Amino acid sequence: MPQTHLPDEPRAELDERSLQDIVQNHELHTALEWLETNPPHVIADELARMDNVTAGMAFRLLDKDRALTVFEELEPVDQQQILKGLRDHSFLELVEAMDPDDRARMLREAPAKVAKRVLAGLSPHQRRMTAALLGYPEGSVGRYMTPEVVALAQDLTVGQALGVVLAEGNEAETVYTLPVVDHGRRLTGIVELRELVLNPPETLVSALVVTEPAYAYATESAEQAARLMRETNDLNLPVVDSEQRLVGLLTIDDALEVIEAADSEDVARQAGAAPWAGHYMAASVWQLARYRALWLSLLLVAATLTVSVTQAFEGTLERVAQLAMFIPMLIGAGGNAGAQAATSCVRALAVGEVRGSDLLKVIWRECRVGLVLGGLLAVLGMVVGTLFVSAHVAVVVGITLILICGWAATIGGTMPLLAKRLKIDPAVVSAPMVTTLVDATGLIIYFLTAKAVLGV
Amino acid sequence: MPQTHLPDEPRAELDERSLQDIVQNHELHTALEWLETNPPHVIADELARMDNVTAGMAFRLLDKDRALTVFEELEPVDQQQILKGLRDHSFLELVEAMDPDDRARMLREAPAKVAKRVLAGLSPHQRRMTAALLGYPEGSVGRYMTPEVVALAQDLTVGQALGVVLAEGNEAETVYTLPVVDHGRRLTGIVELRELVLNPPETLVSALVVTEPAYAYATESAEQAARLMRETNDLNLPVVDSEQRLVGLLTIDDALEVIEAADSEDVARQAGAAPWAGHYMAASVWQLARYRALWLSLLLVAATLTVSVTQAFEGTLERVAQLAMFIPMLIGAGGNAGAQAATSCVRALAVGEVRGSDLLKVIWRECRVGLVLGGLLAVLGMVVGTLFVSAHVAVVVGITLILICGWAATIGGTMPLLAKRLKIDPAVVSAPMVTTLVDATGLIIYFLTAKAVLGV
Repeated sequence: MPQTHLPDEPRAELDERSLQDIVQNHELHTALEWLETNPPHVIADELARMDNVTAGMAFRLLDKDRALTVFEELEPVDQQQILKGLRDHSFLELVEAMDPDDRARMLREAPAKVAKRVLAGLSPHQRRMTAALLGYPEGSVGRYMTPEVVALAQDLTVGQALGVVLAEGNEAETVYTLPVVDHGRRLTGIVELRELVLNPPETLVSALVVTEPAYAYATESAEQAARLMRETNDLNLPVVDSEQRLVGLLTIDDALEVIEAADSEDVARQAGAAPWAGHYMAASVWQLARYRALWLSLLLVAATLTVSVTQAFEGTLERVAQLAMFIPMLIGAGGNAGAQAATSCVRALAVGEVRGSDLLKVIWRECRVGLVLGGLLAVLGMVVGTLFVSAHVAVVVGITLILICGWAATIGGTMPLLAKRLKIDPAVVSAPMVTTLVDATGLIIYFLTAKAVLGV
Repeated sequence: MPQTHLPDEPRAELDERSLQDIVQNHELHTALEWLETNPPHVIADELARMDNVTAGMAFRLLDKDRALTVFEELEPVDQQQILKGLRDHSFLELVEAMDPDDRARMLREAPAKVAKRVLAGLSPHQRRMTAALLGYPEGSVGRYMTPEVVALAQDLTVGQALGVVLAEGNEAETVYTLPVVDHGRRLTGIVELRELVLNPPETLVSALVVTEPAYAYATESAEQAARLMRETNDLNLPVVDSEQRLVGLLTIDDALEVIEAADSEDVARQAGAAPWAGHYMAASVWQLARYRALWLSLLLVAATLTVSVTQAFEGTLERVAQLAMFIPMLIGAGGNAGAQAATSCVRALAVGEVRGSDLLKVIWRECRVGLVLGGLLAVLGMVVGTLFVSAHVAVVVGITLILICGWAATIGGTMPLLAKRLKIDPAVVSAPMVTTLVDATGLIIYFLTAKAVLGV
């Protein structure tokens, strides 16, 4: 009977105590039982939440085979922490057994000292593999692909092809997608293992080949390639160099990881924080603060614009003091309308529904959406204005809401697409930046409207 | 030579004109060429961007095999539009050829009339499959799984098992993960096709079986199951009923779709908009406005709190009018700090780094992070305060920033976890809701600090 049903949390009987507690109390037997009864990804999860020393102690309690599986489940930062605590022998054994792409990903984020120690200990073959992956730029397909691929020649029969799989398959990370190459190792198609298994041995592979497969260049964006896989529903995407020669495969589990990381990054950016790869519970207060500090400070500095705008209209405010009452509500509404537009557009760009060239269409569209929404809010705002102050002020609030929402949605839709055109990550010019910009301009709209309507 | 390299955009030579233009001008040959030279997912992308009538015309130009592939790439809403334009014969042919899980997904979102027409036209076998999938609750694994699975008995050899795959594999969506079941069809393990192909035919399957596989119940959350697959790196997750009997497989391409949809939903919620499944460019201005209107109105109504708070402190504001100058900056900073905390926690909950039971730890952690960040902002804020007004007001601004940031981060971290405990989607109590709440309380903090420091 399977025991690992959806195990997001440690199993019930041991649930009350964390592995951290058990290991810190030196309860060897309980710890071993905990490690034996939980599946690798739950163990990895717990290790990631623990402090480094205790995590290292717990890791050394795992038997050799499980240790590798658990290790591969860990994020690169956590892997380094575990490695630091191992003796040379176990260290090398572990690193040599990793998949080359996982190893490259870990090395990429490791300090130079760790990286050197890892590379020095590898067999020449493994070192070549890893070094190849490390040569590709940050965030490129090359960094995430597996270089160990079973490729087929064009003129095989199904029986011969299965022979090749049998001979070379043990080394490869996947054998489900088999790229077909010509004499110059140039990609000419792919065949699925499924097709080989479901057809008689004498069938020619060429009859089963998909001849115009989607593929990616090793130097291109891994996120773009991963989203392509989501659209094509391919299990593995062939990766080629600039001369169309096969250099690896992007497997779907790595694509999934790339997409989740990209989404996490966009989400962090949307809230005005630097993206980061660490585990929330394992980060210290200082680390969390550091990741948020830069953006928060920049936004505060940008917000001084609102101070000078308000100062410029001090006279208006002094004459009609009640105008101050609606400032938070009005700039809040503008900020929300802008954030909605910005977020829609950042997401639509990320999943490929909108392209950089749609800029004008998006501006026209968001401007109208904003005005429609502003009209709706104006009705609500005028009720509020009348209840709290007077019909005159209510008219100012209503007109302001229409203008602010139209303006905010336009800006919110424009900035991500402009960023895309300027080759900046659209997520960077995200909701909080739009909000801050709209705050200051919204105030100008408010005070000018007040002056015009109230004649002050 | 493959021609479909990362084709996010239509191929260059036809790039300047959209399929919409070509079809609307009745240029049959150009349209056929466009459809032949672009891969299915690009065609689907273009169809999704087009108006319904033109999209239907373009779709009918596709040859039969490609039509199905393109159709399966479309989102359910777009599929319905295409179906509406087809005659009964083509309609049924298309629907019958779809995978049962894709069909169920489309039906789920279709109006009752379309759904009835679809179900009525299916063969009894296909209807049973689809109806089974439709019986599961919205968002559950059952809705996304494929019911067509090749399951193996426990006592086969590798040769016999490959025979089973050969006999039944054509019907199944995947043959790469083969669940192993006992006489009561209860799940006892899984074996990978890879293992069968890489081992001699006389090997016993039982020697290759993974005996405690991760699995999901059909009635459980599809998102949770999909995230589990991301952690375990499984290609397919067996799905069982409440008695552990195998009922299907969740394939990784469906898992990827579930994760992307869940992320899109969280992103929309984070910006205070209702989640929606449509294509950005295909939506009308009214549709976009409708999806954003509810939240925007609710937030505006909530923001009237800020109006009453400011009214309550009208006396303070009249005595020191310059206090109004800093309102947008201060509540902006509080909103940003709260949004950062809320977003971190919503994301950490979604990917499983934080659990509902971590509530107190998260509160304590976010409170300290907020105070640290507030201290930093206070320094900046006091500089701004001194430059624009006076040292006295600067002290008020500084103290307020520390208190607001500490308070906002605490609220931002608490609300998603509270929501989780109350079984509400944490993303609902997202950044804009936290911001609006913090706006009103932040103003109270500001005015009380001003009264205390300035003695007004």
